[in-house]
Amino acid sequence: MRAQLQGLLDIGDLQGAKLLLVPVQPVDIAEAIEGLPESMQAIAFRLLSKDEAIEVYEYLDSTVQQSLLEEFKRQDAIEVVEQMSPDDRARLFDELPAKVVRRLLAQMSPPERQATALLLGYQEDTAGRIMTPEYISLKETLTVEQALERIRSEDKASEIVYYLYVTDPSRRLTGTVSLRELVTRAPETPLTEIVNRDTIFVHTDTDQEEVARLIQRYDLLAIPVVDRETRLVGVVTVDDVIDILERETTEDIYTLGGVQSDRDNYFQTSLVTVARRRVVWLFVLLLTNTVTGTIIRSQESVLQQVVALAAFIPLLTGTGGNVGAQSSTVVIRGLNTDEIRALGPLQVILREARAGLLLGSILGTVATLWAAWLQGSWLVAIVVGISLIAISLLASVAGSSLPFLFRRFGLDPALMSAPFITTAVDVLGVLIYFNIARRILRL
Amino acid sequence: MRAQLQGLLDIGDLQGAKLLLVPVQPVDIAEAIEGLPESMQAIAFRLLSKDEAIEVYEYLDSTVQQSLLEEFKRQDAIEVVEQMSPDDRARLFDELPAKVVRRLLAQMSPPERQATALLLGYQEDTAGRIMTPEYISLKETLTVEQALERIRSEDKASEIVYYLYVTDPSRRLTGTVSLRELVTRAPETPLTEIVNRDTIFVHTDTDQEEVARLIQRYDLLAIPVVDRETRLVGVVTVDDVIDILERETTEDIYTLGGVQSDRDNYFQTSLVTVARRRVVWLFVLLLTNTVTGTIIRSQESVLQQVVALAAFIPLLTGTGGNVGAQSSTVVIRGLNTDEIRALGPLQVILREARAGLLLGSILGTVATLWAAWLQGSWLVAIVVGISLIAISLLASVAGSSLPFLFRRFGLDPALMSAPFITTAVDVLGVLIYFNIARRILRL
Repeated sequence: MRAQLQGLLDIGDLQGAKLLLVPVQPVDIAEAIEGLPESMQAIAFRLLSKDEAIEVYEYLDSTVQQSLLEEFKRQDAIEVVEQMSPDDRARLFDELPAKVVRRLLAQMSPPERQATALLLGYQEDTAGRIMTPEYISLKETLTVEQALERIRSEDKASEIVYYLYVTDPSRRLTGTVSLRELVTRAPETPLTEIVNRDTIFVHTDTDQEEVARLIQRYDLLAIPVVDRETRLVGVVTVDDVIDILERETTEDIYTLGGVQSDRDNYFQTSLVTVARRRVVWLFVLLLTNTVTGTIIRSQESVLQQVVALAAFIPLLTGTGGNVGAQSSTVVIRGLNTDEIRALGPLQVILREARAGLLLGSILGTVATLWAAWLQGSWLVAIVVGISLIAISLLASVAGSSLPFLFRRFGLDPALMSAPFITTAVDVLGVLIYFNIARRILRL
Repeated sequence: MRAQLQGLLDIGDLQGAKLLLVPVQPVDIAEAIEGLPESMQAIAFRLLSKDEAIEVYEYLDSTVQQSLLEEFKRQDAIEVVEQMSPDDRARLFDELPAKVVRRLLAQMSPPERQATALLLGYQEDTAGRIMTPEYISLKETLTVEQALERIRSEDKASEIVYYLYVTDPSRRLTGTVSLRELVTRAPETPLTEIVNRDTIFVHTDTDQEEVARLIQRYDLLAIPVVDRETRLVGVVTVDDVIDILERETTEDIYTLGGVQSDRDNYFQTSLVTVARRRVVWLFVLLLTNTVTGTIIRSQESVLQQVVALAAFIPLLTGTGGNVGAQSSTVVIRGLNTDEIRALGPLQVILREARAGLLLGSILGTVATLWAAWLQGSWLVAIVVGISLIAISLLASVAGSSLPFLFRRFGLDPALMSAPFITTAVDVLGVLIYFNIARRILRL
């Protein structure tokens, strides 16, 4: 569709382009616009009807939102921003220069300005920042009929109206009522009779990942956010939560792969940023690798006597690194999804150690046979086999215990991931290998 | 809470245990029961009221569900199973022995049996299998008032009633109406006036991951499932989708870490299963590592002349592996989240190649200086530096292109992940290193 749109714009067929976009979902239009050359984005955007423009705008990447904003006339800009939902607006304002934000805030209507300022007042990555203040709350003194009347009179389309929130006279959250309940009950039923008081809520400073976990755990469509006095101030909806979970997962996977993650889309950032995000980790690993090198160097006398030993170094460190990476992958994922809550660290490490020993024995046997065939020396082969078992055991213990250690110190367990474990096991693996060689070969 | 519950059961205080569980959410009770010794699980489960028991049962792990089912008397078992929602029931039946499934199916009431058989008839991991047949559909000839009447008369609590589905006389899906719309419109409005015909739906054989992506992309709370004649047959809800996304992510992360993934909870499987899931991958890597070893062996004459070269092998292969792992991590994640759809493979690989060259140059300079200081020979140091640049370039190209290649052949790109790239780069890295050494050192 992007190609079609660009083709029509290229030949200046604005009417055709307009017709092309009519039956399309806003998120798809947003994607098509993002794919256009920057000079065409504003032209395409202006083809949309006012209502549609707002929806499409909310789906655009923040870089495109920003460049469109610069293209708009002042009045158009304020109109678009004014109509955005407050949580999307807060996200955009995060990216804009402070000067622009101040100007836009000053031009906005007082209620919208207040809603935005409220969100911007909370810390990033907290429930307060990602919630929407657009929800329907009902006083607990109402009847079902009055509640429905209140919903009908609400002119603004609230983001979600499946759950309705019930509050006491001082605006404290007392429970929820589902719209379905309201529809199926007799009109004169008081809300107090049907309110579900067993409501799960979060505080404005709850971490967004925790918010996502709660929605996931209790299969909710939205979760209310309260301030310190348990007064209702907003709602976080499930669609935002899916995006949060995906972003957090990308961060985890990047960390596992040794890439420093950031908020913005990787595929739109500059080469220097890309390099900056990776080079620190590479330097750490380079340093560790030089340690391995130094160890090998210090064993030069051994190597000179039995040069054949050098040939097995990659096999030993490589296998050790992979065994360690497997253990750390499983443990890190288990910690992040709370799957290993039931087992204590000791049980997990013991379990991994046994797996490492078992895998080491299988691989060690194969490696011994292979080394004997290749080398013709059973002594060297046995050194390789025993080293492989010892290294696998060590790698699985390191791979499973280091993530726990990191979490204990309040660090992200994912930092203890494949690249790090692999390199750490290299160092220890080489040490173990040469020590076993010295003893068995009596060097 | 699990400890508290176990304590009360240990001293036989059933009344106390019952009181403990009353104000707790079903999913939390399920978790507490899962943590109990098997002998106590059935006792704890029987403390629950009938309504609560069903809800808790649906949240239990399938292994626990199964062992409880064996403990129940026949009549109790059928009662629990009968009350489960059809999608949860189909998931349980997947795990049960065929004999038990046949017996339970035979004892169920005809409509429930039919609903289950319908789901079981679809392939695993498709929309048909994960959908719930419990939704409310409205004929398009109704008015708002009649529609509300119909919703009120629906005795069974449908899983979700925020969206209502509108069908034509031959049960084909024609659109959706939100409950909010029904509540706010005049009673005599015909549904045809308010139905939203621009409805996103999936087919029964759509892959569940695609279903999840659509719900995420269009911010839906549920998506209707239709058969080949576009007749409405079920609905997939957003809470199921979050679980699917999490399971798929775990599979991705496991694959990235070189662990074969499976459906069941890793931390409850046996040691042999754990070893089986990892050993294949380790053998593949062992084989690749022996190639590296063979190459080093074939260069023994070079090594014997300049033993110092051996000390830099881990540094070169290690760094190369890490650079490759970073590239593959970014590309694999980008492919899985559709983030790199806008860029073609060539653009991505070119981008990564430039990043690899840049990183290689930075690291190469540092490594040259370090090697010169350590070795005292500028020639060897230059060999190391040039090799590092070449290996980084190669690693980033391999890391970014292999996932695309795998996807082209219909394989999971995540297989081309850190462990594999690391090992592959080892082989090529050693070859490059010795060739450069031969030329520069004229060996």
